Amino acid sequence: MNEETDTTTDVRNVVIVGSGVAGLSAAVYAARADLEPLVLEGPEPGGQLTLTTDVENYLGFPEGVGGMELIQNGKDQAERFGAEFTHGTVENAMLAERPFELELSNGDTLQTRALIVASGASARWVGAENEDELMGYGLSTCATCDGAFHRGDDVLVIGGGDSAMEEALFLAKFADNVTIVHRREELRASEIMADRARDNETIEFRWNTELEAIHGSQEEGVTSATLVSHPDGYPAEKAATGVDVDRETVDVGGVFYAIGHTPNTEFLEGTAVDRDKSGYLRTRTDDAGRATTETAVEGVFAAGDVADPHYQQAVTAAGTGSMAALDAEAHLETLERTEEAAFEIPL
Amino acid sequence: MNEETDTTTDVRNVVIVGSGVAGLSAAVYAARADLEPLVLEGPEPGGQLTLTTDVENYLGFPEGVGGMELIQNGKDQAERFGAEFTHGTVENAMLAERPFELELSNGDTLQTRALIVASGASARWVGAENEDELMGYGLSTCATCDGAFHRGDDVLVIGGGDSAMEEALFLAKFADNVTIVHRREELRASEIMADRARDNETIEFRWNTELEAIHGSQEEGVTSATLVSHPDGYPAEKAATGVDVDRETVDVGGVFYAIGHTPNTEFLEGTAVDRDKSGYLRTRTDDAGRATTETAVEGVFAAGDVADPHYQQAVTAAGTGSMAALDAEAHLETLERTEEAAFEIPL
Repeated sequence: MNEETDTTTDVRNVVIVGSGVAGLSAAVYAARADLEPLVLEGPEPGGQLTLTTDVENYLGFPEGVGGMELIQNGKDQAERFGAEFTHGTVENAMLAERPFELELSNGDTLQTRALIVASGASARWVGAENEDELMGYGLSTCATCDGAFHRGDDVLVIGGGDSAMEEALFLAKFADNVTIVHRREELRASEIMADRARDNETIEFRWNTELEAIHGSQEEGVTSATLVSHPDGYPAEKAATGVDVDRETVDVGGVFYAIGHTPNTEFLEGTAVDRDKSGYLRTRTDDAGRATTETAVEGVFAAGDVADPHYQQAVTAAGTGSMAALDAEAHLETLERTEEAAFEIPL
Repeated sequence: MNEETDTTTDVRNVVIVGSGVAGLSAAVYAARADLEPLVLEGPEPGGQLTLTTDVENYLGFPEGVGGMELIQNGKDQAERFGAEFTHGTVENAMLAERPFELELSNGDTLQTRALIVASGASARWVGAENEDELMGYGLSTCATCDGAFHRGDDVLVIGGGDSAMEEALFLAKFADNVTIVHRREELRASEIMADRARDNETIEFRWNTELEAIHGSQEEGVTSATLVSHPDGYPAEKAATGVDVDRETVDVGGVFYAIGHTPNTEFLEGTAVDRDKSGYLRTRTDDAGRATTETAVEGVFAAGDVADPHYQQAVTAAGTGSMAALDAEAHLETLERTEEAAFEIPL
């Protein structure tokens, strides 16, 4: 056995980047197809769902299922069929040559014939003064993680979509008062979620208002926040261009961000994998115009929120995860055929 | 109140055609959006999954879940949020005017602002003896779902097209021996797929052969199968007209039907909803090229197998079901705004 043979045996069939719902569903399918997938759990093992207490809309659980529970179930399921999980975050992906090579942040490298990117999208930050310092010290992107620290507090939730309503409703269980701060006077949230928030006596709304600064320290946590408002909405933008806005500092014990997500695709910079202007991966349609999980690089597939700026549901991520594994399986079969054919060429 | 007003109050927000995984997931999402969806259960309530005993690849159930159980769970979940279910099959859809009108096979008519088509695709059955009794008990229409149950078995795959080759190749990973049974001596499959099957040592072929009967019971599963053959092909047809055929019973642990699926879209004939040559619905991509569930008719959405000739998995159907409900919700909101705007036009 020479070194080359050793290297070859180390090449994985498929590496799955990310261990949220999409990565887990891909792992279940790839493992059941005997591809022995390796799942890199990434910096947020279990993904966004671990930040949710109750998942009510994932089909199959009439009474709902805990976010953590669904993730743990999925992991158990994938492991049962032979998927391997490891801590690890991809720093750099070299996709120009085959097999692909992945550099992990701990310095390890991995080689793989197929790659499934299911690295998700992470919560976005507002850009308010002091947020770097106070993130994790009274400022949070995850009400379910940190809500219980705010019993008896007044807290702010920044955002106007479903997740802002969800966070506010969760926080209302602990906080004395929850104020949803939204830069327009109309919510982006669905009717049912908006109604629930409106009907909750602990929740109030500040329309046409934005967060400008958070005050406090890592020792005492968040103590207050400065809000700007303008009757026509988008006050921060207006303030920046010199328009007069109202400015008020309110006493609060916590601030929660719920303004959307950024796809985790930095490690694909410099590769031929196609991303949109927000960084979300683009996938291809087949000859009949139907969705696939193929990216612009043959052998690289995308599943879940990282390729879906629009729906971002647990059940859609699970769906595209299974598609990615099936696409990867088909790709590996073609590769195998090509390699065999190469051997058959007479000398 | 005049008659016209009465009719208007009877217009549903959204009717979901089909009660398989896609329809149920759409119902959960639409109900949670307060759209009070009506689900028409169709001629096969619960869809394809009711033909499967154990579903091992639907994320969230580490020990698997019964096909029937998953469907019942999904129905309970949708009903919990206010979805309404009714027996009913659409005979005819009139989509040229708004609201849409649906004629049911019992003579009733329904009006709806949005329509989600989740009527699925039905696997074709051979017509062999005992197939009704053994479907889901060793007889299957889905190798990806049930292949892993047949480690060490001898199995039959019935069919001669690409999907038969695919199923056989997938089964070859688990079964000791896979026999493709084909009624002619020439495959309909593409060269590449046929070659792959031919080159696989675990796969063999029985030409000019058809399945006449399957033996076994729901307790012990499939135990054997009776095959008929004739050197000129199409033996079953010949046997029926009194021609002598060879008849042999072989021991097998599983039988897989791979003679195709038929999408249930006949009721859309004559509408502007776009179908491919096999009858599968075509859905549109958005401006960024990403998949949506929109059909060629605004307000009509498609989810699940009926728009997916390729993946056809429970979890992908659940995913597109949720997408269809979210798309329908957005459509209804737009409709509402348009209607409100119409009222605001000064006289």
